[in-house]
Amino acid sequence: MPNTLLQDFIIEEHIKNALKEDIGFGDITTDYLYPEEAEITAELRTRQDGILCGIEIAKKVFKILDKDIVFEQYYRDGEKIKSGDILAKISGSARAILTGERTSLNYIQRLSGIATETRKYQDEIGNNKARITDTRKTTPGFRMFEKYAVHTGGAKLHRFNLSDCVMIKDNHIKYAGSITKAVETIRKNISHTHKIEIECDTINQVKEALEIKADIIMLDNMTCEEMKECVKIISGRAIIEASGNVTIDTVKKIAETGVDVISSSAIVAKAKTLDIALDM
Amino acid sequence: MPNTLLQDFIIEEHIKNALKEDIGFGDITTDYLYPEEAEITAELRTRQDGILCGIEIAKKVFKILDKDIVFEQYYRDGEKIKSGDILAKISGSARAILTGERTSLNYIQRLSGIATETRKYQDEIGNNKARITDTRKTTPGFRMFEKYAVHTGGAKLHRFNLSDCVMIKDNHIKYAGSITKAVETIRKNISHTHKIEIECDTINQVKEALEIKADIIMLDNMTCEEMKECVKIISGRAIIEASGNVTIDTVKKIAETGVDVISSSAIVAKAKTLDIALDM
Amino acid sequence: MPNTLLQDFIIEEHIKNALKEDIGFGDITTDYLYPEEAEITAELRTRQDGILCGIEIAKKVFKILDKDIVFEQYYRDGEKIKSGDILAKISGSARAILTGERTSLNYIQRLSGIATETRKYQDEIGNNKARITDTRKTTPGFRMFEKYAVHTGGAKLHRFNLSDCVMIKDNHIKYAGSITKAVETIRKNISHTHKIEIECDTINQVKEALEIKADIIMLDNMTCEEMKECVKIISGRAIIEASGNVTIDTVKKIAETGVDVISSSAIVAKAKTLDIALDM
Amino acid sequence: MPNTLLQDFIIEEHIKNALKEDIGFGDITTDYLYPEEAEITAELRTRQDGILCGIEIAKKVFKILDKDIVFEQYYRDGEKIKSGDILAKISGSARAILTGERTSLNYIQRLSGIATETRKYQDEIGNNKARITDTRKTTPGFRMFEKYAVHTGGAKLHRFNLSDCVMIKDNHIKYAGSITKAVETIRKNISHTHKIEIECDTINQVKEALEIKADIIMLDNMTCEEMKECVKIISGRAIIEASGNVTIDTVKKIAETGVDVISSSAIVAKAKTLDIALDM
Amino acid sequence: MPNTLLQDFIIEEHIKNALKEDIGFGDITTDYLYPEEAEITAELRTRQDGILCGIEIAKKVFKILDKDIVFEQYYRDGEKIKSGDILAKISGSARAILTGERTSLNYIQRLSGIATETRKYQDEIGNNKARITDTRKTTPGFRMFEKYAVHTGGAKLHRFNLSDCVMIKDNHIKYAGSITKAVETIRKNISHTHKIEIECDTINQVKEALEIKADIIMLDNMTCEEMKECVKIISGRAIIEASGNVTIDTVKKIAETGVDVISSSAIVAKAKTLDIALDM
Amino acid sequence: MPNTLLQDFIIEEHIKNALKEDIGFGDITTDYLYPEEAEITAELRTRQDGILCGIEIAKKVFKILDKDIVFEQYYRDGEKIKSGDILAKISGSARAILTGERTSLNYIQRLSGIATETRKYQDEIGNNKARITDTRKTTPGFRMFEKYAVHTGGAKLHRFNLSDCVMIKDNHIKYAGSITKAVETIRKNISHTHKIEIECDTINQVKEALEIKADIIMLDNMTCEEMKECVKIISGRAIIEASGNVTIDTVKKIAETGVDVISSSAIVAKAKTLDIALDM
Repeated sequence: MPNTLLQDFIIEEHIKNALKEDIGFGDITTDYLYPEEAEITAELRTRQDGILCGIEIAKKVFKILDKDIVFEQYYRDGEKIKSGDILAKISGSARAILTGERTSLNYIQRLSGIATETRKYQDEIGNNKARITDTRKTTPGFRMFEKYAVHTGGAKLHRFNLSDCVMIKDNHIKYAGSITKAVETIRKNISHTHKIEIECDTINQVKEALEIKADIIMLDNMTCEEMKECVKIISGRAIIEASGNVTIDTVKKIAETGVDVISSSAIVAKAKTLDIALDM
Repeated sequence: MPNTLLQDFIIEEHIKNALKEDIGFGDITTDYLYPEEAEITAELRTRQDGILCGIEIAKKVFKILDKDIVFEQYYRDGEKIKSGDILAKISGSARAILTGERTSLNYIQRLSGIATETRKYQDEIGNNKARITDTRKTTPGFRMFEKYAVHTGGAKLHRFNLSDCVMIKDNHIKYAGSITKAVETIRKNISHTHKIEIECDTINQVKEALEIKADIIMLDNMTCEEMKECVKIISGRAIIEASGNVTIDTVKKIAETGVDVISSSAIVAKAKTLDIALDM
Repeated sequence: MPNTLLQDFIIEEHIKNALKEDIGFGDITTDYLYPEEAEITAELRTRQDGILCGIEIAKKVFKILDKDIVFEQYYRDGEKIKSGDILAKISGSARAILTGERTSLNYIQRLSGIATETRKYQDEIGNNKARITDTRKTTPGFRMFEKYAVHTGGAKLHRFNLSDCVMIKDNHIKYAGSITKAVETIRKNISHTHKIEIECDTINQVKEALEIKADIIMLDNMTCEEMKECVKIISGRAIIEASGNVTIDTVKKIAETGVDVISSSAIVAKAKTLDIALDM
Repeated sequence: MPNTLLQDFIIEEHIKNALKEDIGFGDITTDYLYPEEAEITAELRTRQDGILCGIEIAKKVFKILDKDIVFEQYYRDGEKIKSGDILAKISGSARAILTGERTSLNYIQRLSGIATETRKYQDEIGNNKARITDTRKTTPGFRMFEKYAVHTGGAKLHRFNLSDCVMIKDNHIKYAGSITKAVETIRKNISHTHKIEIECDTINQVKEALEIKADIIMLDNMTCEEMKECVKIISGRAIIEASGNVTIDTVKKIAETGVDVISSSAIVAKAKTLDIALDM
Repeated sequence: MPNTLLQDFIIEEHIKNALKEDIGFGDITTDYLYPEEAEITAELRTRQDGILCGIEIAKKVFKILDKDIVFEQYYRDGEKIKSGDILAKISGSARAILTGERTSLNYIQRLSGIATETRKYQDEIGNNKARITDTRKTTPGFRMFEKYAVHTGGAKLHRFNLSDCVMIKDNHIKYAGSITKAVETIRKNISHTHKIEIECDTINQVKEALEIKADIIMLDNMTCEEMKECVKIISGRAIIEASGNVTIDTVKKIAETGVDVISSSAIVAKAKTLDIALDM
Repeated sequence: MPNTLLQDFIIEEHIKNALKEDIGFGDITTDYLYPEEAEITAELRTRQDGILCGIEIAKKVFKILDKDIVFEQYYRDGEKIKSGDILAKISGSARAILTGERTSLNYIQRLSGIATETRKYQDEIGNNKARITDTRKTTPGFRMFEKYAVHTGGAKLHRFNLSDCVMIKDNHIKYAGSITKAVETIRKNISHTHKIEIECDTINQVKEALEIKADIIMLDNMTCEEMKECVKIISGRAIIEASGNVTIDTVKKIAETGVDVISSSAIVAKAKTLDIALDM
């Protein structure tokens, strides 16, 4: 279990599906050119600066194709890597290495891209106590990997799915009649191990949420001024999450309002892949 | 089968996995607040201009949660949509609509983002005959959807996986000794229904590829001048694919060299999600 | 979505596996005796008093075997049923009804057994504010159903799995050096949406847990006297969970100490099946 | 293949699903507290007397999480264990051991509970030739494990599923018109490798079943006197199964009537888990 | 459940996998030529005489691709069909019909081929009481369909798998020391619902098997003379199965020896596909 | 990756399903007779001449049941084997070897049968340049194995599935209006990496296909005279595939017409299993 939160046996299943998707009925270029015995050596190298994420997944890709592949790993997930750095040296069956190349890169490029983007936001926040956090805007079927990359990048993780935290939004409030009524109905039913987060648009809503003892108060699309006032009002009695209009340009100012976490879908949804390649 | 290339029963399986990922042990907010009988109406609305992609997938998400959901669809995949447009009206079980919201948006936002980016490249090419095409740089487990979005955006699709076209790259050439030897070995073995593409860095390689009757010649990282010369040499005897340094700024110039297809991983890997939302 | 927390499409998959397990290569008695066209009517009847749970799962079993089966349902999950009550009337294909009989009963008997046992504990607690809750001691592969039955029986649900609440036990504390150190390390890393529960054996541990602002304090194997004292000390600043030696005989006394939740593995692990049968 | 009837590769798949169910998106307590390198040792110890069942399944749980876990096993399935006995010593990755704890215990506690209950019934039968046997009243998705526990407890196994023995019940008889007609219709169609069992309520039915050469005759809810008479009538020409009202108090008397097997759903459905724990 | 022994929901899963295998990333010919709305009509027609098997599977193939396909069925499984007969008329979505054509034919051609071959053997046996039966020599992953075809062809089915009948062969006998010892060891352990079959090469073995009350005695590679003698010796006290050298030329003579069943792997393994086509 | 085109991890999954199909709830003969420790040695021996195919799959079957099985392999796939040849020696757990016997033979017998049949056709073609090729008439769920056997037998493989080559047939032509129109519509949409094959019944169609630059022209059910004329007309400008009435008696004459590939469904659909056995 080298990867926090990602179990080996679960990764393995995901990778096998990804390999089937990329291999189809066989790698007709490689299988017909290289004999079974042919061996090669390749270097996994980054061509951009960033935060590494997914190197053990890349390793697993090759191991699934051929358990005798030797994968010498020089960096670990979460470490800074610089353009030109050799991340790992891979040697063994030519067929396995060439067939696995694209799939391993597809994981590591995307995950490192997310980790890099996440770290950029967190670094921008600087010494403020706030932590950047993610959302449920993820690629269908790929969430656990994207969350792992967010975590690797240094962010707080937001709830994994609909079953592990209550999130009361405007339409819930409208339906229930008030924040108070929504919380009361839900609290009666939910596990005592689950928190309740309430999305607030106005200071009055914040006050109501506080009154009813919400665990987390989300300040939705507020100005920095409004947020500062809310921070003062809440005064440590609930965790404060800022949401809306979070960009690399605004994140520091938002952090300076004193909020606890700042959620951004961009760190996943708009992250670019990091340019990592396999040089034979 | 409303979606070309995407079979309903295959989509369904993918969506079910995505829903499990997002629902976990249940939507504790919605299930505990709304009784089974509660009904709502919601509008699927875009907040950005772009090319719509994935609307029938979004519909399917709700239908899987509750087959009685009514989904009135106003646009079809591939159509231009403008900020503010209502794409569909969804009515029925509040639980199903609220529980399915995020997953349906995760599909449609990402796919429309890719289709929009793809169309931008194709539009930039203008009246030149060249077609933009994609690569195998896709999100593991999500390729068929990303390819569908690329197709919806108006591009040519490149090979789906390692089994449906031979692609001879530099390391294959080095191993075989020459392009000619690589092609001869592989051609003996492959299906007569498969094409052979050869990645060429130099004009001499192009000539050798032509001699051995490659079906597709990829001009890898060549200047526009070099490409023009290759187009002249090849003169219709092979399909010409340009690759490398393809950006929205360079794609038109590349197209003007007379190549047939221009491959870009960016249309998938660097596309941003399109802002589409569900308004209750 | 008639069942809170249990999505139809997830239940369906579980039932299909259960049916495969029970059908093997075919119901050789029924298939060879009854022609395809034969129809029968059957009554689902309880032979014991209890709380009904799983009736829509039972219905689904028959619907999977033959979508034209008519299932008239007279009770809903969570309702009290008395020995002799007819719960539903099932009519249609003889093959489908006879083949599905055992599997449908296996679900409904076990789930109603758990719901009944749970309700007994909750009823015993009476007007005390405490709520009975479950544990992770469940049958492998059957947890979501068992939790659903616990919920139907009127209990609070404890955490679903290892990813939705932190639970710090004695060995974690030993490893970290102290409760404080364990909490600090973990809090830095976990989602802000997750609670921290601490298992405490002594009043000093309770105080330390309170100091470090644990969300939930579990009083493990304490006497009622000790629990009363802890309740006084905690005084609403954390949720209090009683654990250990919880039986139908002790649960009321424990509840009278003023704790919030009382966890019991027995309501699932030692519940007996409720005697429900299908009369043709 | 250390476990009779349970193939390793099938167990493995079941355990992986159980682990996913219990782990969700990761063990947030353990993963964030223990570094990857941390190692611990734990003892698997029973706190109750009983028959051990599932120890190699427990072992497999840990091996799936980390193949380098060392699992020293001191008892084998089917052996008597006494409160306080150490069943195995487990050492290696702290993360793997703590994450796997609950799942491994969930298997071994439940299976040992069933094996223990089964043995109690068989022991009660004493020197009578009768063997206790199980039924198809099992937990959906868990039958092969429950049957394995029944076998480990020393019972005969009844049919695994609907495809491996014919069982003609009252409604089949009514539909066919008579036992004779039901048997004739079915016998024409079934495999010659399959037996026919007939549920008989009366001595006349027993005679008819005998006449038509049933392989197994089930005496359903008969008194001991009636059973004795049937045993005399059948006189070795068919296997005799007693069914109905089988409890630990009645099983010996039933056995003394001379029947061959006594079927009881209670040995599975009403067995309690055996208290086995992991001490760190 | 129109097909004896084949549950709809199990067939459906198998067909979906077969369709995925044949469709890959999409039917690029059909999807790009026919618009979504295009409709066609096709006739399923046999070009050879034989026994129909698999028509409802073929129907299901089209229904999975498009539930609105209309499939008018003129024959049922097990019926004789003659070259030129129209088996069904299929109308609806051109895409669904053309995409499903090959997969539906692959099922029906192979299954009808097996049913036809089986019927030929059974017809050859004529008025003799013997029934032809199959073996476990089946195509991996396709057994339930092949057995269904054998059943449709009019044969007895032999055991489905290793768990539903004991079959003691020469190596088991050698290991145990004698037939008697093998039977005694196994009989103690197996379900009372399972039969024991013994493979005998000599008349002495037959006598030993009879003595120990084997349920089925297989006469392995005996001459017709030997078989006749065994039939006389056994005289109804066990089911007699003839095995070895069973061809269409020998089957009648073997049947005339008086054996009960004659097992042949050829009816499955060497059956040819029946020429059935889809005419648009 | 010893098998070209067949990835180990994919084979493994298929074999596990095949084993489940054959094992059911356990090998009741073997598991109850042989203790866990019993070891045996067996020889895999052919009783017919042919081309070996599937030996590493057979090996894998045993390895899945028990990874400690020793499998000494004396021949490789594609080699000629003669009646009596020992193909491999297998030693280890008696349970694993006896339980895996049938499944391993089911793979190797069927695949070697196909490889042998294929080689016979290819050998019959002799020095003519033509290559025999297969079709999509395969057993549902078993195609990749059957294609592997065809490849092992020395044939060209035709397209794997509907997504990797366009195949325009008569009904497509009718719908489009002409070959030219069909090609134009499809070519605009398909990947540039895909070929277009056109089924031609007449010489005029061949000329039209040539005009529109089809990659492959299939001569459907033409006489040898007609084919010779087409070969002359096409003159190397397209690959020529002969189809229809291909038997072992006609294949040589067809080859002598000068066509490039000759497709036959018979090499798969009508191949007989090769008699290979496991001698203990």
